Amino acid sequence: MIVDGAYRRPAGAGERAFLERLRARLPAAPDGQVWVGDDAAVLEGGLLFATDALVAGVHFDPAWAGPEDVGWKALAVNLSDLAAMGGAPVAAVAAVVVPSQPPGSADGVLAGMAEASERFACPLVGGDTTSGAELVVAVAVLGRAAPQGAVLRSGARPGDTVFVTGALGGAKRALDTGEGRDRLRRPVPRLEEGRAAVSAAATAMIDVSDGLAVDLARVCEASGVGVLLDEAAVPLAPGASLADALGGGDDYELCFTAANVGAVVEAFAAAELGPPAAVGRITAPGGGRALPDVGWEHPVP
Amino acid sequence: MIVDGAYRRPAGAGERAFLERLRARLPAAPDGQVWVGDDAAVLEGGLLFATDALVAGVHFDPAWAGPEDVGWKALAVNLSDLAAMGGAPVAAVAAVVVPSQPPGSADGVLAGMAEASERFACPLVGGDTTSGAELVVAVAVLGRAAPQGAVLRSGARPGDTVFVTGALGGAKRALDTGEGRDRLRRPVPRLEEGRAAVSAAATAMIDVSDGLAVDLARVCEASGVGVLLDEAAVPLAPGASLADALGGGDDYELCFTAANVGAVVEAFAAAELGPPAAVGRITAPGGGRALPDVGWEHPVP
Repeated sequence: MIVDGAYRRPAGAGERAFLERLRARLPAAPDGQVWVGDDAAVLEGGLLFATDALVAGVHFDPAWAGPEDVGWKALAVNLSDLAAMGGAPVAAVAAVVVPSQPPGSADGVLAGMAEASERFACPLVGGDTTSGAELVVAVAVLGRAAPQGAVLRSGARPGDTVFVTGALGGAKRALDTGEGRDRLRRPVPRLEEGRAAVSAAATAMIDVSDGLAVDLARVCEASGVGVLLDEAAVPLAPGASLADALGGGDDYELCFTAANVGAVVEAFAAAELGPPAAVGRITAPGGGRALPDVGWEHPVP
Repeated sequence: MIVDGAYRRPAGAGERAFLERLRARLPAAPDGQVWVGDDAAVLEGGLLFATDALVAGVHFDPAWAGPEDVGWKALAVNLSDLAAMGGAPVAAVAAVVVPSQPPGSADGVLAGMAEASERFACPLVGGDTTSGAELVVAVAVLGRAAPQGAVLRSGARPGDTVFVTGALGGAKRALDTGEGRDRLRRPVPRLEEGRAAVSAAATAMIDVSDGLAVDLARVCEASGVGVLLDEAAVPLAPGASLADALGGGDDYELCFTAANVGAVVEAFAAAELGPPAAVGRITAPGGGRALPDVGWEHPVP
């Protein structure tokens, strides 16, 4: 399958279009900084800054995700954005909107968030809470890039190998079948994997939050390249199909590109991590047909 | 009127109790850092980090505040938290939940936020949007403390003079009567005033977001002091009553304490700002009766 930089979603269709409009309104970022457009913004001194919100009925169903799960996940998906830059967490803040029913949601969210905060060494240093119609947990994270710099989406070059850090499609399968829901409820940000990728001189990186097809297409578009994906090499979560892996979201593995396969294997071994899967090769742009529109993007009215 | 450190709200009553529970779950902040409990967290290197969310029907009524106003205000109230530390903005990120009706809300929010971003020199470097039942705008800001350090709530000392940077009660009056609603819709964070207060060696500072009575009581409690408030000296917005000033919220002026009145007058003049009003004096703790419970606190289920 060939995906190239010509891949586009219909204008105005969703979140990405909104972010494009945001970017159009902003002054240009100073040299060395990256504002809207990557997993996290890169600021002076290698500071990373990102935000992501979880909304009841959109990102989770209260039937299978309790407030504790939502608290965990809200922090975890933000940390995944730092991981995708090869960065480390510094601190997080959370704004929580809680409905009056069931009571105690705020404390549940807090408990889950505190658990993730401890597990991933990211102190939760501030918060704001209000009542509202539905549960919304908006987290913002501050991080620090590795000394080598942040890994952007835009650095992939023809000849680079494409890696993913773990099995995909598990979250989609859990959503469809109800099996393996921990994957969906309690994603694990791949912070160590992100640092290992930096050590191996990764040229581009993104977290797989909207499906490998869409997320890899974003890397290709940002880098101005194409990709030859080896579908048979995409690691599948137990019970998941290739369609789940390509089109499902919420897996939070990392997808990155690097020129030196040996260095990647070595860096992951040195960090005592399993080797990432090589799933394709970056090509020159313009090679071919667009990837089917299988990924998930939240509509923005 | 005497307010002292013994002032307490009923446990579990609202946002503050929630933040207390959050604080109880956190490990202690390293020396020189301040986590939950002030207007913004103070991190290594003088970085400031805060978040605040605006929710439809709680913080504003769509009948008098359009999406543009909400966008402006969401950023402005966060910048007010930086102002209250004597800090300067570095960057902001925003998570926006938009209902499907009316269409175009997301763009309205963005426009208002972009306007405030330009006005207060705080680039909006990242965002997240989703659809949801009601409009929620959660902003997080990153700032930098002045070289002298961040001004906390906890530094007020007996003998210090208490200042406010401008007229109070205007937002409450606008809420009650519909007059002067720009005050409510488009608050102006007192960033320059906050820096002037730092120059004048302010000992404690807070932004007046929940009414002077509650906010000043927070300073007293954090500092372990009391205060003698000169009610006649509290500057009132046109048409506002003393009760509006003490008990209304949403004014976003700064309240600060300083030992040297002459230095305060001089610092504000040097910054080409009108002089702040001296409204009271910090006393030893335990002096007297509690302030009536007139301020506003959002209930948290």
